[in-house]
Amino acid sequence: MRRPVPEDFAPLPSARRRRAWDEADRAARPTRLGRLRARLAEAGVDAYFGLRREEIRYLTGVNLGDGEEKVAGHSGRFLVSGDAVVVLADTRYTLQARREAPDARVEAVTYDLPARWADLCAAIGARRVAVPAADISHALWGELAAAAPGVELVPAGGWVDEDRAVKEPAEVERIAAACAVADRALAALLPEIRPGVTEAALAWRLETLMREGGAEALAFDVATLAGPQAALPHGSPGERRVRAGQVMLFDFGAQVAGYRSDMTRTLFIGEPRPRDLAVHELVARAQAASIAYLEASLEAGIAPNGRAADAAAREVISAAGHGGHFGHGTGHGIGLATHEAPSLSRVASEAPLPSPTVFSVEPGVYLEGRTGVRIEDLVLLEITARRVERLTRFPREVLVVG
Amino acid sequence: MRRPVPEDFAPLPSARRRRAWDEADRAARPTRLGRLRARLAEAGVDAYFGLRREEIRYLTGVNLGDGEEKVAGHSGRFLVSGDAVVVLADTRYTLQARREAPDARVEAVTYDLPARWADLCAAIGARRVAVPAADISHALWGELAAAAPGVELVPAGGWVDEDRAVKEPAEVERIAAACAVADRALAALLPEIRPGVTEAALAWRLETLMREGGAEALAFDVATLAGPQAALPHGSPGERRVRAGQVMLFDFGAQVAGYRSDMTRTLFIGEPRPRDLAVHELVARAQAASIAYLEASLEAGIAPNGRAADAAAREVISAAGHGGHFGHGTGHGIGLATHEAPSLSRVASEAPLPSPTVFSVEPGVYLEGRTGVRIEDLVLLEITARRVERLTRFPREVLVVG
Repeated sequence: MRRPVPEDFAPLPSARRRRAWDEADRAARPTRLGRLRARLAEAGVDAYFGLRREEIRYLTGVNLGDGEEKVAGHSGRFLVSGDAVVVLADTRYTLQARREAPDARVEAVTYDLPARWADLCAAIGARRVAVPAADISHALWGELAAAAPGVELVPAGGWVDEDRAVKEPAEVERIAAACAVADRALAALLPEIRPGVTEAALAWRLETLMREGGAEALAFDVATLAGPQAALPHGSPGERRVRAGQVMLFDFGAQVAGYRSDMTRTLFIGEPRPRDLAVHELVARAQAASIAYLEASLEAGIAPNGRAADAAAREVISAAGHGGHFGHGTGHGIGLATHEAPSLSRVASEAPLPSPTVFSVEPGVYLEGRTGVRIEDLVLLEITARRVERLTRFPREVLVVG
Repeated sequence: MRRPVPEDFAPLPSARRRRAWDEADRAARPTRLGRLRARLAEAGVDAYFGLRREEIRYLTGVNLGDGEEKVAGHSGRFLVSGDAVVVLADTRYTLQARREAPDARVEAVTYDLPARWADLCAAIGARRVAVPAADISHALWGELAAAAPGVELVPAGGWVDEDRAVKEPAEVERIAAACAVADRALAALLPEIRPGVTEAALAWRLETLMREGGAEALAFDVATLAGPQAALPHGSPGERRVRAGQVMLFDFGAQVAGYRSDMTRTLFIGEPRPRDLAVHELVARAQAASIAYLEASLEAGIAPNGRAADAAAREVISAAGHGGHFGHGTGHGIGLATHEAPSLSRVASEAPLPSPTVFSVEPGVYLEGRTGVRIEDLVLLEITARRVERLTRFPREVLVVG
C-alpha cells in the first residue's frame, strides 16, 4: 500500500467556515431548547436543571474546557423553563457567561447553590424541576431537595443526550474536520515510527502534530501501545521502546470547534508476524461486517440498531474463536463528548439508531501478553438519505512502517 | 529585575528519585488504608466505596488519566473493608488494574454494577457501606440501593479528601517538582512574549515547554490572557494578539508523577501603565499578607486557619477599595487533583489547617474591560516544623517583557 501523506486528507477549515459553525450554533439553539421544552411539557415539569459541560455548551453556548467543570463550581450550570434560560456563574465566570450566552440571564451563584435554589426556581415559576440523575451528585440532590421543600426534583433520564445524538449538519462537519486533523497527524507521524523510539515519544509527537495541525485540544489522551501492550485496550504509553516485529496501536482523536474525533489504527513495525497479520485481518473483517450490516439495513429499508451492529462485528470474531478476546462494545456516539449516545454493544438498544448520527465502529482482539489489534473509524449514519459514510479516511489496510 | 532563566530552578527529578516515589507510595498505602479503616470503624460501617480518580490512585495504585473516568465506566472504582481491597475493572482495564494494584483483588464488572452489587458486598461481609455522596451520582446511588436492599448505603463526607490534604514527604517532593517544571517553562518562554504573538500561540508554547520539560500532563488548560482578557479569572486563550502596554496573565501548572502544580504570574508587555503597576503592587501586597499571617501564626504558636488566611489577603484589597474586584477565594489545596482540600476563602473552616499540606495563595484584582492581575504561588505549610515555604520559585516582582 502506498503510505498515506497528510495531503491525502481534507484541509483545515477556513476562518469563514468556523464563523459559519458559530452562526449555525446560534441559529440552532432555539430549536435545541424547543426540543427540551417539549420534553418538559410532556413530563409535566416546569424546568430542567443541566449540569454537564456538553449540555451547557449545546444549550447555552457557555464553553467550559474539558475538566474545567471540576474547578468551576456551579458555574455554567443552567435552568431552562418554558420561557427562560438562566446560567449560573460565580465571579470568575460572570463575564465569560454573559459573552458566550447573550440570550441567557446570568445569575451570580457561589459554592452555595442550595441557599439560592428556592429563589432561582421561584424567579422562573418552577415548582417541578427535572434533573438528570446521572449528572448530579447524590449530595447535591439531597441539598437542593432539603433547601426548597416547595420545589420537587424529578429525575430526568438522558433527555439532552438523546437530542444530542441526532447531529446537525454543522456538527457533522466539525466531527469530520476533527477526523481529518487526526488522519493528517498520523500520516505525518509515519516516517517517525521506527524501532527504538518510545511509546511516550510517539504519543507526544502525535499530540503535537494534532495540536499544531488544527486541533484546539485532544479528544482524549493519546494511546500508543507497542507489541504486548496493545493487548491493554486502554493502556497508557510508557518508556517502552518500539521493536521490529511488533504491532503498534494508535488510539487518538482531535477536537475542532468543540467537536471530537476518535480513531484507532494498528500498524506493523517491520516484517509483520503471521499471527499479528491474521488478527488484523480478522478485526478488519469484523469492522467491515458491522458497516455492511448498516448498509444492508438501509438498502432493505430497515432502520439499523446498535445491538445488531455490535453483533455483526462480534459474530465474525467469535466465529474465529476469539469471542473471549473482544470484551468491549463495538462503538459509541461522539460529538461534544468523546463518548456519548448512541451505543453499539451487546446491551445496546434494539430500537432504531438515531439519525443523522455519528459513532465509532471499533472492534478489537486482545491476546494478553502477546498482541492486540483494534481498528476504529467514525461513521456517519443518515437513514433517510440511505447514507453510511466513514468520516475517518485514513486507510485501514495493513501498513508496515519502521 | 534580572530575567529568570530555566537554570534558576530545580532540575528534573532523576529516574532514581522517581522510583523512590513509587516505592514511597507502595510503602504508604497500608497507612493510608489504615486511616480509612479507622474511619470505617468509627462510623460503624463495614466498607467504603470510592469512585474518584484521585482516591483510586491514592488508595489502590490504579492510575487513570484525567477525564478517563468519563469513559472508564466503573473501572477503577473500589471497595475497602476491614481486610480487603477490591478494584472493579471491565475487560479494558483488567490487566492494568492487576498490574497497578497488585495487593487488591480485581473484580470483573461491566456497565451493570447494580447487578453485581449485592454479591460484591457479601463477598467482603459488608452490610453497611459508606459512599462519598459528593462523588456518586444520584442515579447510581438509587440503583445500588434498589439492587441490594440488604446493603445499607451510608453517606460519607470527604473522608479521603481530609486524609489526602495531609501530604507525605514524597507527595510534597512531587508537587515541588511540578512547580519547578512550570517555573522553568515560564522562564524559557519569556524571550518569546512579544507584541503581535497571540494568546493561543503562547499557551501552546508554554504547554510544549512543560510537556517537553518534564511534565507528563498539564494540571489544567493553560490560560494566557492579554490586557482586558486578564479580567476573566478563568478565561481561555484566543487568537487575540498581545499588545505593548498590556498586562499578560499566565495561569498554568504541570503534573509530575501524578502530582500537580498551579501558578499565576501577571507580566507587563513593554512599558507598564501606572494603573496596572498599582494593581500589581496591591495584589502582591495582598499575597504577602496572607503568607505573613501564616508565618506569624506559627511564630505565635497558633495553628493558622483557611478563613483567616483568606481574610489577610482580602483586607489589603478591600482597604484599597477593590474588595468588589476580588470575587474568588484566596487559595485551594493541590496534589493528585488541581483543586482539593484545604480551602482558603471567606467560607473556609476556622479549624486549624491540616499539616503538612500544600495550597495556593492567589489573590487577584479584576477590572472588567480593562485589566486584571493575579499572583499565585504554591505554599507548603508544616505546622510542627514552623515552616512556611513557597514551592513556586519564579520571582513575583514586576517583570517587563516584549
